[in-house]
Parts: sequence; C-alpha cells; structure tokens
Amino acid sequence: MKALVYHGPGQKAWEEVPDPRIRKPTDVIVKIETTTICGTDLHILKGDVPAVERGRILGHEGVGRVVEAGSAVTGLVTGDRVIISCISACGHCDYCKQGVFAHCLGEEGAAGIGWILGHLIDGTQAELVRVPYAETSVYKVPDGVTPQAGTLLSDILPTGHEIGVQYGAVKPGDVVAVVGAGPVGLAAITTAGLYGPSRIIAVDVDRNRVEQAKRFGATDGVVSTDAGWKDQVLALTDGLGVDVAIEAVGIPETFAMVLDIVRPAGHVANVGVHGKGVDLPLDKLWISNITITTGLVNTNTTGTLLKLVAQQKLQVDPFVSHEFDLDDIEKAYDTFSRAAETKALKVMLNARATTGAPPEATA
Amino acid sequence: MKALVYHGPGQKAWEEVPDPRIRKPTDVIVKIETTTICGTDLHILKGDVPAVERGRILGHEGVGRVVEAGSAVTGLVTGDRVIISCISACGHCDYCKQGVFAHCLGEEGAAGIGWILGHLIDGTQAELVRVPYAETSVYKVPDGVTPQAGTLLSDILPTGHEIGVQYGAVKPGDVVAVVGAGPVGLAAITTAGLYGPSRIIAVDVDRNRVEQAKRFGATDGVVSTDAGWKDQVLALTDGLGVDVAIEAVGIPETFAMVLDIVRPAGHVANVGVHGKGVDLPLDKLWISNITITTGLVNTNTTGTLLKLVAQQKLQVDPFVSHEFDLDDIEKAYDTFSRAAETKALKVMLNARATTGAPPEATA
Amino acid sequence: MKALVYHGPGQKAWEEVPDPRIRKPTDVIVKIETTTICGTDLHILKGDVPAVERGRILGHEGVGRVVEAGSAVTGLVTGDRVIISCISACGHCDYCKQGVFAHCLGEEGAAGIGWILGHLIDGTQAELVRVPYAETSVYKVPDGVTPQAGTLLSDILPTGHEIGVQYGAVKPGDVVAVVGAGPVGLAAITTAGLYGPSRIIAVDVDRNRVEQAKRFGATDGVVSTDAGWKDQVLALTDGLGVDVAIEAVGIPETFAMVLDIVRPAGHVANVGVHGKGVDLPLDKLWISNITITTGLVNTNTTGTLLKLVAQQKLQVDPFVSHEFDLDDIEKAYDTFSRAAETKALKVMLNARATTGAPPEATA
Amino acid sequence: MKALVYHGPGQKAWEEVPDPRIRKPTDVIVKIETTTICGTDLHILKGDVPAVERGRILGHEGVGRVVEAGSAVTGLVTGDRVIISCISACGHCDYCKQGVFAHCLGEEGAAGIGWILGHLIDGTQAELVRVPYAETSVYKVPDGVTPQAGTLLSDILPTGHEIGVQYGAVKPGDVVAVVGAGPVGLAAITTAGLYGPSRIIAVDVDRNRVEQAKRFGATDGVVSTDAGWKDQVLALTDGLGVDVAIEAVGIPETFAMVLDIVRPAGHVANVGVHGKGVDLPLDKLWISNITITTGLVNTNTTGTLLKLVAQQKLQVDPFVSHEFDLDDIEKAYDTFSRAAETKALKVMLNARATTGAPPEATA
Repeated sequence: MKALVYHGPGQKAWEEVPDPRIRKPTDVIVKIETTTICGTDLHILKGDVPAVERGRILGHEGVGRVVEAGSAVTGLVTGDRVIISCISACGHCDYCKQGVFAHCLGEEGAAGIGWILGHLIDGTQAELVRVPYAETSVYKVPDGVTPQAGTLLSDILPTGHEIGVQYGAVKPGDVVAVVGAGPVGLAAITTAGLYGPSRIIAVDVDRNRVEQAKRFGATDGVVSTDAGWKDQVLALTDGLGVDVAIEAVGIPETFAMVLDIVRPAGHVANVGVHGKGVDLPLDKLWISNITITTGLVNTNTTGTLLKLVAQQKLQVDPFVSHEFDLDDIEKAYDTFSRAAETKALKVMLNARATTGAPPEATA
Repeated sequence: MKALVYHGPGQKAWEEVPDPRIRKPTDVIVKIETTTICGTDLHILKGDVPAVERGRILGHEGVGRVVEAGSAVTGLVTGDRVIISCISACGHCDYCKQGVFAHCLGEEGAAGIGWILGHLIDGTQAELVRVPYAETSVYKVPDGVTPQAGTLLSDILPTGHEIGVQYGAVKPGDVVAVVGAGPVGLAAITTAGLYGPSRIIAVDVDRNRVEQAKRFGATDGVVSTDAGWKDQVLALTDGLGVDVAIEAVGIPETFAMVLDIVRPAGHVANVGVHGKGVDLPLDKLWISNITITTGLVNTNTTGTLLKLVAQQKLQVDPFVSHEFDLDDIEKAYDTFSRAAETKALKVMLNARATTGAPPEATA
Repeated sequence: MKALVYHGPGQKAWEEVPDPRIRKPTDVIVKIETTTICGTDLHILKGDVPAVERGRILGHEGVGRVVEAGSAVTGLVTGDRVIISCISACGHCDYCKQGVFAHCLGEEGAAGIGWILGHLIDGTQAELVRVPYAETSVYKVPDGVTPQAGTLLSDILPTGHEIGVQYGAVKPGDVVAVVGAGPVGLAAITTAGLYGPSRIIAVDVDRNRVEQAKRFGATDGVVSTDAGWKDQVLALTDGLGVDVAIEAVGIPETFAMVLDIVRPAGHVANVGVHGKGVDLPLDKLWISNITITTGLVNTNTTGTLLKLVAQQKLQVDPFVSHEFDLDDIEKAYDTFSRAAETKALKVMLNARATTGAPPEATA
Repeated sequence: MKALVYHGPGQKAWEEVPDPRIRKPTDVIVKIETTTICGTDLHILKGDVPAVERGRILGHEGVGRVVEAGSAVTGLVTGDRVIISCISACGHCDYCKQGVFAHCLGEEGAAGIGWILGHLIDGTQAELVRVPYAETSVYKVPDGVTPQAGTLLSDILPTGHEIGVQYGAVKPGDVVAVVGAGPVGLAAITTAGLYGPSRIIAVDVDRNRVEQAKRFGATDGVVSTDAGWKDQVLALTDGLGVDVAIEAVGIPETFAMVLDIVRPAGHVANVGVHGKGVDLPLDKLWISNITITTGLVNTNTTGTLLKLVAQQKLQVDPFVSHEFDLDDIEKAYDTFSRAAETKALKVMLNARATTGAPPEATA
C-alpha cells in the first residue's frame, strides 16, 4: 500500500510500504476513506517529538471501512464505516473504566497506549491502518455523516469539547472566553454552544480569525493586541470576569491572559500544548476559588458528538477548509504548514473510490 | 388600587381595594407593569385549592417597578424593574441555602412560605403588590428584556427548566420526549435546547399542538392518539427508549406513557400537577436503573434564564399568544379559560403607563 | 468436575459434569476457591425465574484462580486470584462505556448479557467456571483480602453500595434510613458509612435484626411493627423526614414506608426486587422535589470497594454467618433457606485446597 | 466592654472599648462565650495585612449568645447560642445564591463583605461583637455541642473541608495526601474521613507532626525532609500517584510537592495562603488531566459539619491544645505565637460565666 512515512526531521514521503496485518485478536484493519493532518504532525516533522522513529507512518485521525477483524472482535464486521479515534484504549484498565482513555494503562507491544497511532505505531495517513483494541478505539459512523465530518471527530472536536468545554464546566448562562481561535479553539467555541452559554467570546491576535470565529458560534470577539483587550472582555461580563476561560494556544502569555479574565469561582481550562512552564500567581489567586484543568483528550464523548452531527445539531463542515486526493498528501502538508497564508483550518485527504465500485459496494 | 379579587368558587371581580403597605423590613411594594394568568388560577376559581380564602387577590407572576422598600432591603431601590418570582423565599433557612426555595422553611404571618402569592397572601393581579423577603424573591430586569418576557420568568419558564430539564438531567446528545405540549411542556421543550440534546420529541393528543411545538424547539412530534405512538417514539431512538421523558400533563395515563418510553438508566421528570395517585410497576422497573423526579419550581435558575433572554439565547416571545390591558383582566380570564378554542398560551396583562409619563420616567 | 445443577423447581444436585472450556478469546476459566448462595438462587429453585433451564449450574458469586485464559485476554494470567462479578459486561457497548454494566448490550451466545452466570449460562457453584468477557467481568484480588471477603464483592456489597447508597446520593451529614435489615440492607448500611452520614437508621419488622444492624454501622434502629415507627424515625430527624430512604425488601408495604419518611428534596433508592407493582401517590408527591431510583447492580464500584476492604476501611467479615466445604453445598442450601431460624446472612462455600499444595502453589 | 485591640504592627491590648450596637436591621449583637486565635491574626500583628486599621478589634472565630437582634431578623432570638462564621454573607447576591459566600457582593459600610470580622470591621476577640447579615452569617448550636467545638467550625474545619476535601473531590477508595500537618492540614485530614478514602497520608517536615496527624485520621505519614519522601508516597499508591493532593502550607516548595505526587486525572487542592507566585510546569502537566483548585472558605458546609459534630461523627476535640480565660488573651497570643515550642494547635479563650447565672439562665 501507499503511506506517508516519516524519515527524520524535515523528511517524509508518500511511498509504497507493506500492508498492515492483524497482530492481536482485538485488532482491526481499516481501509482509509478520509484522513487529515494535525498540527502535531508538523511538530513531529520538525523533530519535536523524539519518540517518533524513522519509518513511522504518520496520522492519528481518519474514517474508513473495516476490512479485517481479529477473532475477539464481536461488535464490528467487515464493511463497517468507522471513525478511528486518536486515542487507543484497552477498555478494561482502571482509567478506561472511568472513561479516562487518555491515560489507558493497557499495552501495545513495547509501548504503552493512549495516543499511539502515528506516534508509537503506524498511523492513518495511509491506505490501510491497523487499529489495536478496536472495539474501544473506533466508532461506527451512522448514515448521513460523511467521512469528512467523521474525521473531525477523531481528535479536534472531542479535544475542544472535553478538555475545553467539559473540563471548563460550561453551563447555561455562562460567559465563556476562548483565547486562541485556531482549529482547536474553534472546536471549543462550536461545542460550547451545546451547553447554553449566554456569550462566547473569541480572543485572538488576528482580527480575521476573531471574525471567522463568529461563523463557529462566537457571539463576540476581542483582538488581543488591542491595548484595552481585557477591559473589552470584562465589559461583556458583569465586570467581574468570565465564568469560563479556555486557553487554546499553549504559551505563557495566553495562559496569563486566561488567569487575568476569569472571575472568582470561575474555571480555567487549558487545552494548549505547552512547550515550557508558566507562572501561577498564587499570591493573588489562592483566594479566588478558581479551578484550573489540563488534559489530553479522552475521546469518551466521540459517540455523543457523533449523534449530534448526525442530527445536524453540531455543524462541523466549516472546519474543512481544503480537500485533496489522498495521493496528493504532500501538497496537503504544504498547504497546511502555511496556514497563516492559506487560511487552512482542517485539510481533508480523501481516498479515491476503488475503480468500478464505491466503498459501500465493496464493504 | 384595583385588583382581581377571589370571592369564592366561580366568583371574581376586578375591583377597588386598599393599597398594600410594607409590613416587614424585608418587604417591597411593586407597581405592576405586566402580569399574567396561570392554569393554577383557574383551579383556584373552580374551588380546587381550598387554602385560598375569599377576598384574596390572585396572581403569582409579573414584572413591575419597586415603589417602596423596607428598611432592611439593601440591594433594591425605588424604580428598579423586577421580576416577581412565584416562589417567595427567606434566603436563610436550610432549604434556601441549598437553593431549594420551593421548600423554604421561613414564615410569613401565620403561613409558611414558598408559593404564597395569590394563594396565602395577596398576589400580582393588581396595580400594586407587597412582596415579602424581596431580596431573595425578585430579580432585577436588565435592559433589553421586556416586562412580558420577564413575566414568563416568574413561573413557567423556570418550572419547565428546573423540574423538567434539570431534574431530568438532559445532557448533550440525549433524546428527550416531552409528553404534553401545553405551556409548561413547551417551556420544557424550549429550555431543553440549552443542554444540547440530539432530539426533542413533542408528544400530545392534539396534532396542532404537536406541530406548534416545533416553533419552540421540538425536532420531532408524535400524536399520542395514534395506535403506534410508542413505536414512533422508539424509532426516533436506537430502539431502547428515550434518555429523558418529561411528564407535563398530570394524569395517570401520561405518567404511564413516560414510564413506557424511558430507556434503561434514563430519567423521568414529572412536571404535571397530579390530582390522584398513579401506578408504578416496580415489578418491571426495579431492574431498570431509572430515576424519577418530582417537584415544585425553586426559581433558583431565574437569574440564569434572564441572562439568556437578555442575550437572545432563549426565545420566549412565542409564549405570548394574547395581550390585554390590565383593566381588561376579566376578558383575559375568559380567553385563557377557553384555551382549546382560543389557542391561548400565555395571556399578558399590561398596565397602562401613567398619564403623561412612561413607567421609566416615574421610577 | 462437580457442580450444583438445577433440575427444575425444587430439584438440584451436587454432581459430576463436564469441565467448562474456553469458547471465545475473551473468556477465562476460573477454579473456584469460595462461592456463596444468594436469595435469588432460592427463587430459581422455587421456579420463579423461568429463564433458568434445567441442567443449568447455579451461582453468580465467587472468588477463584484463573486456570486458563483466552487468546485476547491480556490483563489476566494463570494463577491470578479474581473476584467473579455477578454482572458480565462486554466493556465496549454504549452502556458499558458509561459504567452501566447492568444493561450491557453485548451478546453471549443466544443470550444477552448482564446477569447471566447461574442464570443463562453455567455459574459459580462449581469447581470450575467459564467467565465470558473476563477483563471487564472479574477483578484481581490484592494481597490481604480473603476469598470470603472477595466473594462478598461479587454482588451483595456492590448492590447495597451502588443501588442503595450511590443512587440514594448519601452525603455528609445526611440522615439515612434503610428499610429492611437483611443482607442487602446491611450492605447498604455498611457502605453508607463511606459517605459521612450523621445517622443511619435501620428499620425492620424483626427487633433482633434491628439490633444486629448496629454491628454493621447503623446508629439507630426502629422496629416497624411498632405503632409509632414513623414518629420514631422522624424524631431522629429535624421533623421533616430523612434525607435518604433505602428500600431493601421488595414489597408494596415497604415501598410505601420509604415514601412516607423521605423529606422534601430527599432521595428514595429502591434496592428490593419487587414481584408486583406499587402505588405512587403523585397527588401528594408531585410537589415534593423527591428523587426515586431503581436498579440492578452495575458492579462498577467493585474495584473501589476492594481497595477499601484491603485497607480495612470497610469491614465485611460480619456478613459471613456460616462456612461449609464446597462439597457440602446441599447442607449450605438447607441452612441458608432457613435463615429466619439459622440466622444465616451469607453462607460461604470453600473449596478444599488440592491435596499436597495450596492454590497459590498450583497457580 | 473589654476587647483585643490592634494598635499597629506588633502592638495590641486587651482594653476597655465601647459596646457595639445594632446598625442595620439585619445585625445581631453576640456575647462571646468562646473565641480563638487564627494564624491570620499573627499575620495582622506583623503588619502583613495593611487593610486592618489601628483601633480594630481582632478575631473572626467564636461562639456566643445573641443578646440583641435587628428588626429584620426573624430566625434568631435573644439567647440563641450561635457559631459566628468567619465569612459574613448577604445571602442574596449572585455569589451567595450559589453558596460562594467567600465572594459575597454585598456591602457593609464602605467595605465589601466576605471575611470582614477582625479585618474591616470589629471582630470576635471581645466580650461582645456586632455580626452583620446575621441570618446568613451565624449558625445555631444544637444541644450537645460545646462552645469550644463550635468555635472550631467558625473557620478552620470548614476551610479544611471545603477548600481541601470538597474542592479536592475526595471520594471513596481514594488515596489522599495532605502536605502540611498544621491546624488547617489536620482539618483537611479529619474531614477527608467523611468521604471514605482508602488512605490519608500526612506529609510534613516535622516527624512529630506527622505522628500527631494519625490522631486526626491519617492512616500513613511521610516526613518530607527524607530524601525518598516522594517514593514513600508513591509506594502507598499503585505507583501512579495520589488521587488527591492537598497543599496546606502556602509556599512554592510545597506547591511543587503536590504537583509532583498527583496521579493523572487527579486533583490538587490548594488551601495554603501564598505570599508569592509559584511555577506551574505546564510543559509536563498539559497532558495530565489534572484539576487544580484554590479558594477562601465559603462556610457553606458549616451546618453539615455541625450535624456531624453533634452526632459525634466528627471528632474535633483534639484540635484544642490549650484553654485560657478570655481575660488572659494576651497570654494566649504568646502561647499560640510560639506554636513550634508550645505545640499549640487551637487555643481556646473562654469568657467567664456572668456571676450568679450561667449563660443558659440569662438567655
């Protein structure tokens, strides 16, 4: 098959590799219909994630058809269209039983588990992918949900929803601020709408991104390079600050911002991936009764989000800014890596249907 | 002043009575701008609520201006526009501290407290009303919220929201069924939308009401006189039943219906006011892991709903089917009492502005 | 091997049967060390559970050693001592992902799943038992927990804890009443102590059982045949009723009792298995803001209870009233079936260690 | 009357001052029976709390009898024995309605509200004290609870309970570590026991304090000056860290410790009062799914703790290390300020009963 192989910092190729095969009775093999590229893939290509070895197939998002299932798999059959979750989970360790799949204690070869696809084992930017612990790591796609919409549920939508909105405890009437209006910030904005907030304020350095956020459900926008940005935010509250402040950037400056605008007894939910530590001014905050959360997505709400997409209660199409043939994945990487210029949000890679028959027919 | 006085079963009059005055330091006097009629008022007029004495001024809903405040009142001043909650609450008993204002242990004269306006003390269908424990029993109306919208927050919207939706624990992705699409059922339907359900199914005997419910947020409707009503509901789920079934009628037949359609581990929230007991088939349900709740509104979410109305995140205008001058309250009673024929939902009674000055100017 | 086989109403025998063997990659075979008899087994023997076919091995509780594991089982190895949960769960259906194992949608042969051991498939009153979906249906026993203590965690302790105490939402300071001081009521009493109640009141028709309950953590006792039983209960509260009333009998009279003593905004948790429906006086209760729950145990807290037993924070030894050799199981049935006379609570059946080597050595 | 008056850094005197009197209808005057000294009082005396003006009577804890009540006070009468909460709360602002009394938006003269006694208004180290917003700021003491036990519920027990244990979300089976075994850490240890943890680990630099903590409910202790302290803590868990880590010191080193020992998906509850900011290593923790909380006590659980003390389910007597006559308060300050040497925990100051009649008789 063809796959996007990592060959060390700055090097990758869409090349012929051996097909994956079932290794354990709980595995399935999925034929990819749609996959996408995550900011994390760019980090890997920069060499920032040393755990990724040369020869690794990248990608941890995608939708496809089950083409083979291990002997212990009872709930999936050949032909099932599934979302491949970015988190693989054994389903029976202490963490899995609590739905904290991000910290699954299961094992997969020498590696642990959790985020392993396109990281510690071969991933989804390929024609075929082996998915371990399939029954707790993939989700059947109902009729009416496209492979592109499904692919958005592999990682980005659950991340914004779980780590931003749920950990932030958004509730009816709340004023929510999301600092950082990139894809994951927009995912938080879109899914915050499920919890009845009275306002969702998008905060970003880029005025265009602030405006764009309104298409995803933001009611208000503040450009954070404006001198009075904080006052602008507070003016959208009763003056005491926002109920929930979501950090979706991952740098000390934006973390300081969320601490600055949260009201007493409010919530700060960190979604950003941080490369260095931050200051926590406990001399001011010890008295504030605030809650700060961090986290990697569990994908324990993928099923819920899927129901909402299927019922058109959650609009995800605007996340797709570009589409390419899977064979053109190198062009797609180029487009995605120049997002400031290309306005790329999520770049979809679609496998061409097998000659003579749509995927449905081959299932 | 003028007020609507109850003179025993079947008898009422809009007549001259003495103005109310402050009795305790925690009271305020409110000049009514808008009030409305509740189904409960019709029950009182039938003689079904014997605790209501002859001479009582009816009404427990309304918006107006504070015209006088007791000496202990610090958070309200003359001229404040306020929603009068249908529940009066002392704010400091054990129940009030938990937000269970419906079961306030405070005292008001010989009576207890909770729902007392237009019941045990004089109510809001009048030009002026005394409101006890004002600081925990009225809510300031922000700019941009009309007296009519505010009046809907005295009772009906909080009732649907708290006793239907919150007690029913509606959460994102849920399929919710509301049995009974009258005003309170519609309030449950409208406020359920704040919690991200995937479907809201209106169930009613009347096909027109089922259709009308879609204007309030229902995604689907089922006419319960159809032989296959239950199968129709189940077909809108995965076949196992709804996550949340809200009873908004108050008779044994409809309570049996909600038990019949709830899925294992689902919720049944009873909002209907029942005149007789019902059967609970525990021989079937002991194993079902269901939760059944009952309750009188606490109005502890009035502030939240008010923020949402002010931000236009909650649409309440469709609840107002008719408007009358307050002086025409007897006509309004007639219209409301023939709701099946007049299609009345909520009938608003608006005080005429004082000659020469709008209410704002007199504040 | 030897096993206790059901031969139709009133008939059972401890007899030679074929050893069980692995059927699916997710199965394990467990060599029983300790098992016990449940009231449900007596019901089966009366013919009250027609789904149980002749030839079925009874029993759904027990502790033993894994002697063989299917090819998909990664977290268990031969020799592991495990608690066999009374609920078998696939671990990956929608219900399992929520921890509602009682309503697992998985399949096991023609049968569904959930409570299947000793019911729809062969059970634990045997020398060996096949356990399906082992990784989500058994729990490793830590050092320091005896097989007898572990056996109490197969069913009775989780049932009292989850369906009584957790569904009843016991919290610090609460006054809790448990109506019915048999084994499952005592399990609710013992585990309620984990939630900091101020009082736990045991209510039973039998004065001896009321007294005995104090050894399990009850702070107070009321004999329900006393004319003033209700006043006695209310006198142990502020006069308004108990915060949580747990029904642990399963008849209309006791369900009426819990409704009678619960305070406004309190909880009623039904644990009893009911053979007929009950009355629910909604004409009185619609206004009470109460919550009523029902349910079959999920065993999703077995791991938690196990930690507490291991740390001696939960005392379970008093539940064991009698011990027998497994070979004497027919005598044990006789003792347990005459509990009123023998004072039997839980009757433990212990397999004799294999000649020449303790179970540890053979593992 | 006599009172302990602050005269600037390092200066205080037990001296004659005018009696307080009712200023607002919601005030009461309380005659102190027992009061105590808080670490915060020592900070004030060092000049660390500049908001405290010269001439201020110190103290924010105590129990006494109501001797006069304002005209709006309905739930308290002369003679009632009450706990004076360290937090004064208006009871009707948005924060109070949520139970977040620490951030009450009410007003008291020019000052805001919340912690004001012995800070912005005169406090409890006096023969008499005026308590504003009395109905939401004092708690009636039931029979069987001593003034000394009640005084422990003014601040220290609710602080450990709410900000340590509740914000830390302790639940059955958890392993809890409390870093800092001073009075407030011991309050967290004692009240954690209400939530069924499997272990409570006391961590402190002082071996004696670690040992002493076991009298308050700690099951294990670790001396943090030991090189292997962290490994010792982890060895008491499954190796992944504690479920809940409570910081009860207030310095960067101990905050770093709690971050170091908390498991993925665990909770860090900060109780310590910090004088400077701390580092938050988000580069490591962004992925950990942890929750960090801060806060000032709300005293919204005072009533609950009071029920538990009354029922002897919460043992608070060991907190009292010394008792003095109220007139000897300057000696008590000396003892308390040398706690390392005197082993002082809480130092009780008891008013002598009025000659000729106990407080009960004068009520």
